[in-house]
Amino acid sequence: MTAQPIETATDIAPQDIASVMADMGRRARASADALRLAGPEVRTAALKAVAEAVRRRADAILAANHSDILRARTNGVSEALIDRLALTPGRIEAVASAVDEIAALPDPLGVETARWTRPNGLDMARVRTPLGVLAIIYESRPNVTADAAALCIRSGNVAILRCGSDCLDSSLAVHEAVVEGLTAAGLPADCVQLVSTPDRAAVGALLTGLDGNVDLLIPRGGKSLVARVQAEARVPVLGHLEGLCHTYLHASADLDMAQAIVVNAKMRRVSVCGATETLLVDAAAAERLLPPVAAALIAAGCELRGDDRARALVPQMTAAVEADWTTEYLAPILAVAVVDDLDAAVEHIRSHGSGHTEAIIADDAEAAAAFLNAVDSAIVVWNASTQFADGGEFGFGGEIGISTSRLHARGPVGAEQLTSYKYVVRGTGQTRP
Amino acid sequence: MTAQPIETATDIAPQDIASVMADMGRRARASADALRLAGPEVRTAALKAVAEAVRRRADAILAANHSDILRARTNGVSEALIDRLALTPGRIEAVASAVDEIAALPDPLGVETARWTRPNGLDMARVRTPLGVLAIIYESRPNVTADAAALCIRSGNVAILRCGSDCLDSSLAVHEAVVEGLTAAGLPADCVQLVSTPDRAAVGALLTGLDGNVDLLIPRGGKSLVARVQAEARVPVLGHLEGLCHTYLHASADLDMAQAIVVNAKMRRVSVCGATETLLVDAAAAERLLPPVAAALIAAGCELRGDDRARALVPQMTAAVEADWTTEYLAPILAVAVVDDLDAAVEHIRSHGSGHTEAIIADDAEAAAAFLNAVDSAIVVWNASTQFADGGEFGFGGEIGISTSRLHARGPVGAEQLTSYKYVVRGTGQTRP
Repeated sequence: MTAQPIETATDIAPQDIASVMADMGRRARASADALRLAGPEVRTAALKAVAEAVRRRADAILAANHSDILRARTNGVSEALIDRLALTPGRIEAVASAVDEIAALPDPLGVETARWTRPNGLDMARVRTPLGVLAIIYESRPNVTADAAALCIRSGNVAILRCGSDCLDSSLAVHEAVVEGLTAAGLPADCVQLVSTPDRAAVGALLTGLDGNVDLLIPRGGKSLVARVQAEARVPVLGHLEGLCHTYLHASADLDMAQAIVVNAKMRRVSVCGATETLLVDAAAAERLLPPVAAALIAAGCELRGDDRARALVPQMTAAVEADWTTEYLAPILAVAVVDDLDAAVEHIRSHGSGHTEAIIADDAEAAAAFLNAVDSAIVVWNASTQFADGGEFGFGGEIGISTSRLHARGPVGAEQLTSYKYVVRGTGQTRP
Repeated sequence: MTAQPIETATDIAPQDIASVMADMGRRARASADALRLAGPEVRTAALKAVAEAVRRRADAILAANHSDILRARTNGVSEALIDRLALTPGRIEAVASAVDEIAALPDPLGVETARWTRPNGLDMARVRTPLGVLAIIYESRPNVTADAAALCIRSGNVAILRCGSDCLDSSLAVHEAVVEGLTAAGLPADCVQLVSTPDRAAVGALLTGLDGNVDLLIPRGGKSLVARVQAEARVPVLGHLEGLCHTYLHASADLDMAQAIVVNAKMRRVSVCGATETLLVDAAAAERLLPPVAAALIAAGCELRGDDRARALVPQMTAAVEADWTTEYLAPILAVAVVDDLDAAVEHIRSHGSGHTEAIIADDAEAAAAFLNAVDSAIVVWNASTQFADGGEFGFGGEIGISTSRLHARGPVGAEQLTSYKYVVRGTGQTRP
């Protein structure tokens, strides 16, 4: 690989970024009604056309991706990040298929989620509407450009996308396919805009809300990105900070099930937010459960860091320090604690967890019910892997992320969760006494 | 009335306010689980006990209210504001009855709002949960102390209340009744705390979120309070800025209905956020509709400010200036414009409205449907008064306000709208492929 001059995809003078961004905001707002008032068929047609255009433009997207990869290597980006960035014909087909799947989802807009009649005869309905203009800030996964655009189109929300600078060329190429799809369906190209400069000042402008033209910010990426957006945004933010997920083995847990689930919850993919980071084992069954579960984890390549009681049963464990209970490893490392009982497990989760996903493995249905009720996380699971924390696995057909906030949407955020509602009141001349 | 020394209800040195507020936040968070995990019966018992305690303590509340009124007069508060502040035995009974009504509402927590099974056998449920700790900042209506406390108890949310300084003594007396009710039901007194200092630094502390111990801020009061909270808060805010509501008379409107609804929508109570502030009249029917509707409004004591086409039909109107189309009068004044057609009415609302409540008066069902679809406000109304924009009228049993935001809750915010949800996933050993 020869070194190449470091180029950005477009050249915008820094002093012009604020005005370019303000203009994007105005154009987003101006196109919102067209997308909101288009019928479900139009949004579906646009999504199908986007998928088609991605397939048709596969060569151009691969060429742009090649340019991103060259630049990333020149900039000394790690091979792990380059792997995340790299597209192949197979990955491009996966991007197109994901858009097709979102096209096949029921359109959430206009759906009545409640309807009732008041004693005075007023007929009340609650009907889903879009949120408005979403700004989505993400890192170097070019597939997010298509995913996020598709979820926004499906939910009738106008999108301003801001990708990581490492995948800007790829994202611009994917964005061309998105615009082609929108245009083919008769929708304004401005319904999905992509920030075409890698300058970080563009993010700063988005965080201000572009003069009221951004209704919601969605950071999708690592902890530092989400934390910056949550700290600095002057408009509402939908994001999750981290997934510090727990699996608790109750005294009534079946050993085979515990083994299979814990290995899957930790090791299936260690880098996802639904991966279990801490294993809690009931003291009453630790001797029966922990040695074989630990053996299976170690055999699968997992490093274990335990408290004193855990290490007494599994000497191969290193000693956990306080930070281990609050670290989202995203790596083949698991913290292990023996807890006195279910209440102690709930208390450990309350004081150390991030409110993302927690599981109990138990044969005892009453204990499971107590755990599911007491643990206040976005997702609570009985006898299954925490790695099911995923919009696709919930049947939402893709997600923009998992929200650990309790406001607006909690848990997997799919097209339906990207909507608001309005009340439609139908009368026959009623006046209020 | 003799002048009295101006006293505050409690004395907290300013330098201590930050630590007092931080402590309130910690105590709120510490009591959240007790309220969340209490059964519906416990929350209902607490509410009934609060209502009883308000009735039993009526004399003490009246005495405290008398002290507020004396202080307000000394401070030169207007008689209109003093009227808003003043309690009578009848108003105290109304406060208690409102709490009883909220006690009779179905408990929203634990309700499954969706349940489905995935192809892999996972049983998924979406279950309502509380939001957490709410800080409610309001002005000088002592009844809000009981209303807000009751809605929070019903929805399982811990509350930190901050009333206007003018009603602090009354609010402290009402708060004692709230604490008595909570305690009688075995709930922690800290589930509803009232800031006992009138110092504005307390509001500043709430806006910071008290070290993560406030999940949501709800400003309930005038435009300047809500604007300050929205501008300065470092935690999410649920509030509405104003209700700039429109009523549109379509060409197909029935005259009698138009007359009755417009007079009600403007004049029933001019100070509520659902009052119509602008009347739009279709040009095709302005000659038939506007003169008699205007006559009825004038007879009811309403001042009319019209555009040229409206004034040509009703010479008694004064000339509207640009600001009239964006002013929430909260007074017996109505702006009147003649518009070319339904699209022009929708466009006027889009560019001047506040997204609160808009009505169309029309016999033509197709025109009404087009209006209800195209207008993107929290509440859209066909053939009824905009003054129905109220949680009680929607059947929500009281409200904390009307949200014009599209995030989380939109429209009337009752107990159900003060909840979040979590997903409960029940498996039989599933691992994710």
